[in-house]
Amino acid sequence: MNHIKWSKGEKKIARRAFDRAYEQECAELLAKVREMAAAATEPRDLWEIHDFLDDKRVETDWKYDYRGSVLVRVLGQLVHEGRVAIEELEGLREDKLARIETIVELGRGASESDESPEEPGVDDDDA
Amino acid sequence: MNHIKWSKGEKKIARRAFDRAYEQECAELLAKVREMAAAATEPRDLWEIHDFLDDKRVETDWKYDYRGSVLVRVLGQLVHEGRVAIEELEGLREDKLARIETIVELGRGASESDESPEEPGVDDDDA
Repeated sequence: MNHIKWSKGEKKIARRAFDRAYEQECAELLAKVREMAAAATEPRDLWEIHDFLDDKRVETDWKYDYRGSVLVRVLGQLVHEGRVAIEELEGLREDKLARIETIVELGRGASESDESPEEPGVDDDDA
Repeated sequence: MNHIKWSKGEKKIARRAFDRAYEQECAELLAKVREMAAAATEPRDLWEIHDFLDDKRVETDWKYDYRGSVLVRVLGQLVHEGRVAIEELEGLREDKLARIETIVELGRGASESDESPEEPGVDDDDA
């Protein structure tokens, strides 16, 4: 997908959705940090805040990658997580939207199979 | 200093002072984190908390090293910083206390020369 082209208008749409989702996610992380800091009573609680932020830094650096070559994957992931509404992406070219929807569908399928890992291939009809 | 021996009683005295100073320093860091989190408004403020804790983790890991071979250096540093009072160390052998006091003196000398780095060797008499 390295050759995907983004028009100026598309970049603006993607950037707006991307930035809004990133700011929203950081605000949630900040709320969590405030909660952890308020509840902390001993040194280990302090370092738990560090470890939490350390993990989230790696996670968000990976997730919020704005390079054009991976942006379809990134937006698909954000839509899958409910952080970006597909309506926010109106104005992107149809082929991009179709790819994003495919990623969302694949993500949904993966989440569903995660939910029932102990019953692979068992249909209600067989019960 | 690798051969320094610590009696059971001395270990108890050192441990108490060491733990108290560590808990106190972590409480101060926690207060700072709460302050930073309360004032934070954007993503970069969140990651500043991470970077602050990352630096402090390295710093405290180095500073609070309880190995017997370095404990005299560690206690000297803590006394120099005002985190441990020399009175808390009463009961340590005289040679250890003397070394700790030497470290404190050296630290004081270093701090004083740090304060006027632009006027090396200039005495008031020369003015």
